[in-house]
Amino acid sequence: MTTERLDDTALRPAPEWSVSQWFNTEGRPTLASLRGRVVMIEAFQMLCPGCVAHGLPLAQAVHRLFPQDRVAVIGLHTVFEHHAAMTAVSLAAFLHEYRVTFPVGIDDPGTGALPVTMERYGIRGTPSLILIDRMGRLRAHHFGQVSELRLGAEIATLLAEEGPVAEELSAGARYTGVHRTPYGKSRG
Amino acid sequence: MTTERLDDTALRPAPEWSVSQWFNTEGRPTLASLRGRVVMIEAFQMLCPGCVAHGLPLAQAVHRLFPQDRVAVIGLHTVFEHHAAMTAVSLAAFLHEYRVTFPVGIDDPGTGALPVTMERYGIRGTPSLILIDRMGRLRAHHFGQVSELRLGAEIATLLAEEGPVAEELSAGARYTGVHRTPYGKSRG
Amino acid sequence: MTTERLDDTALRPAPEWSVSQWFNTEGRPTLASLRGRVVMIEAFQMLCPGCVAHGLPLAQAVHRLFPQDRVAVIGLHTVFEHHAAMTAVSLAAFLHEYRVTFPVGIDDPGTGALPVTMERYGIRGTPSLILIDRMGRLRAHHFGQVSELRLGAEIATLLAEEGPVAEELSAGARYTGVHRTPYGKSRG
Amino acid sequence: MTTERLDDTALRPAPEWSVSQWFNTEGRPTLASLRGRVVMIEAFQMLCPGCVAHGLPLAQAVHRLFPQDRVAVIGLHTVFEHHAAMTAVSLAAFLHEYRVTFPVGIDDPGTGALPVTMERYGIRGTPSLILIDRMGRLRAHHFGQVSELRLGAEIATLLAEEGPVAEELSAGARYTGVHRTPYGKSRG
Repeated sequence: MTTERLDDTALRPAPEWSVSQWFNTEGRPTLASLRGRVVMIEAFQMLCPGCVAHGLPLAQAVHRLFPQDRVAVIGLHTVFEHHAAMTAVSLAAFLHEYRVTFPVGIDDPGTGALPVTMERYGIRGTPSLILIDRMGRLRAHHFGQVSELRLGAEIATLLAEEGPVAEELSAGARYTGVHRTPYGKSRG
Repeated sequence: MTTERLDDTALRPAPEWSVSQWFNTEGRPTLASLRGRVVMIEAFQMLCPGCVAHGLPLAQAVHRLFPQDRVAVIGLHTVFEHHAAMTAVSLAAFLHEYRVTFPVGIDDPGTGALPVTMERYGIRGTPSLILIDRMGRLRAHHFGQVSELRLGAEIATLLAEEGPVAEELSAGARYTGVHRTPYGKSRG
Repeated sequence: MTTERLDDTALRPAPEWSVSQWFNTEGRPTLASLRGRVVMIEAFQMLCPGCVAHGLPLAQAVHRLFPQDRVAVIGLHTVFEHHAAMTAVSLAAFLHEYRVTFPVGIDDPGTGALPVTMERYGIRGTPSLILIDRMGRLRAHHFGQVSELRLGAEIATLLAEEGPVAEELSAGARYTGVHRTPYGKSRG
Repeated sequence: MTTERLDDTALRPAPEWSVSQWFNTEGRPTLASLRGRVVMIEAFQMLCPGCVAHGLPLAQAVHRLFPQDRVAVIGLHTVFEHHAAMTAVSLAAFLHEYRVTFPVGIDDPGTGALPVTMERYGIRGTPSLILIDRMGRLRAHHFGQVSELRLGAEIATLLAEEGPVAEELSAGARYTGVHRTPYGKSRG
């Protein structure tokens, strides 16, 4: 596992994802629309053994444990190999059989070697797990297997930042450009 | 797990499989051509969680543990659902990623609801594990998770029948019709 | 697993433990002396299979993951059966062989049916896991197997309460009447 | 895991064990009295983590899977360290809590550095697993974790030697000196 620690990450705004097709959701969730929640992106490929054995069960456990209006788990199917083998049709069956119930988006294949969101986030491979705080800032980026104990702690740490967030939002200054939209409205 | 015990099975000859495409082998193995070896069929679907977590790792372990000229492990991709999701292209990538190295055949889809070999063997679902003795007779048929300890014992029991088999072959009587062909020739 | 949730527990002060002998520590830690840290008590018996398989490895993982000046893991050997089998000598060898490195105290056998601390805390059996916040208040009490994800979140939640505690500490009241202040005010 | 393979072992007679106290059995089983059965010795120490996690559960699984009149599982408590910690009283509680139901003997401590049976068999540590065939001959000796698949195969291989054994016994020649005593009498 390689990790940027919660504290080490420069508090960069997380880039928006680019998704060509969604599963397990009626809408088309954007990162912006999830402002105010901790967001966990589970980047996976359906034929990646580590994703099937560790990444996705962990993501499903997070989805089950935390209230969904506080922690949003988003699967991102970042196909960078075997493209013909991991089609949308195959992914749909996979999600059904593995009982993945959180929203999953297919990372926009784009025109380069890597899908668009994978490139934007600098995701090195699958499974990768990214945590974004309630202000939409990148806070952790893990590649490989993640300890459950540690992930639980990281998510709860971000959840506990509730106070400061509200404060900064009302101050209205610090993250202008990124967090211009006040909390209540960003969901609308 | 549901099981017909080694001793309970009527000693019916195992039917030949019908395979539309092979992976991990240059030839097109037939059951007949494997006479003289214990044959283990691992019937699976690539999007079946129990197959991925238990059935295929167990089959790979058998393939690794026993000499291949004595025990032949054959994967059988018996797709009976999500057909468009489990194509030959997807299967090829799956076998590569999961490092499945034993021969795998796609069960002939045929024209019925179930693939041809699945129907012939009365396979109820995946994963299913079938043991065929050195004389080509059905000896065990498990559906679901199989204990490693037990499987090891079953395979070794069939391997240990070497003597009697040779004896019967030379006697030439008991299994005429089924095992008429002497051992050496059955491979030719 | 039975659990009182973090939020549900009345914010009672955690009772002091009563320990007849310590291992893995030179001193005789008291709960009071750990004020300012989150304290996790792992109540176990060395011959309890669930403790060996789940409780103690989890406690060791917490001890490894969190800085020890912020989270104190305390093992409590609460022997309530097989007393002659789980002596101090046996426990010492057990801790050595299982590489338990956090402080472990033998719960004072007292004169009743249950050891003293076990009785005080209302511990129902082993393994039990108790979380005490930085103010010395009972915050969670689990009996049986605990999810790592959840435990990580619970500990981090208590750690994140740093602000209010620090405030009170600087207010100079340090532990006098620690629990005098009602919950709502302690955060303000 | 270190292993002498079934085929590699010189077919030495297994030495008799020397046991100071038995659990889970009314009698005092001897190796000689088990002639005609495959015997599996699980050498363990109750405070050995590998024994608790792997060795003993495997031995219990063998005890459950195979008919006891064909395969005898014998636990051997070979204490070579922490003697005061692993007393007979502690062992009794351990066997109860871990639901070990096969006969367990305490290896005679003797006067040397190692207990008597451990020395006789050249057991290097715990867990060790020894297989003795129906003729009382050493056939496998594993130190460390053993694959279930492989163990199942080894036991079944020894079980399948039923025919030849009877044959040789009637021939009365081949193993004179070692197997002088005919099969029927060896049990008496």
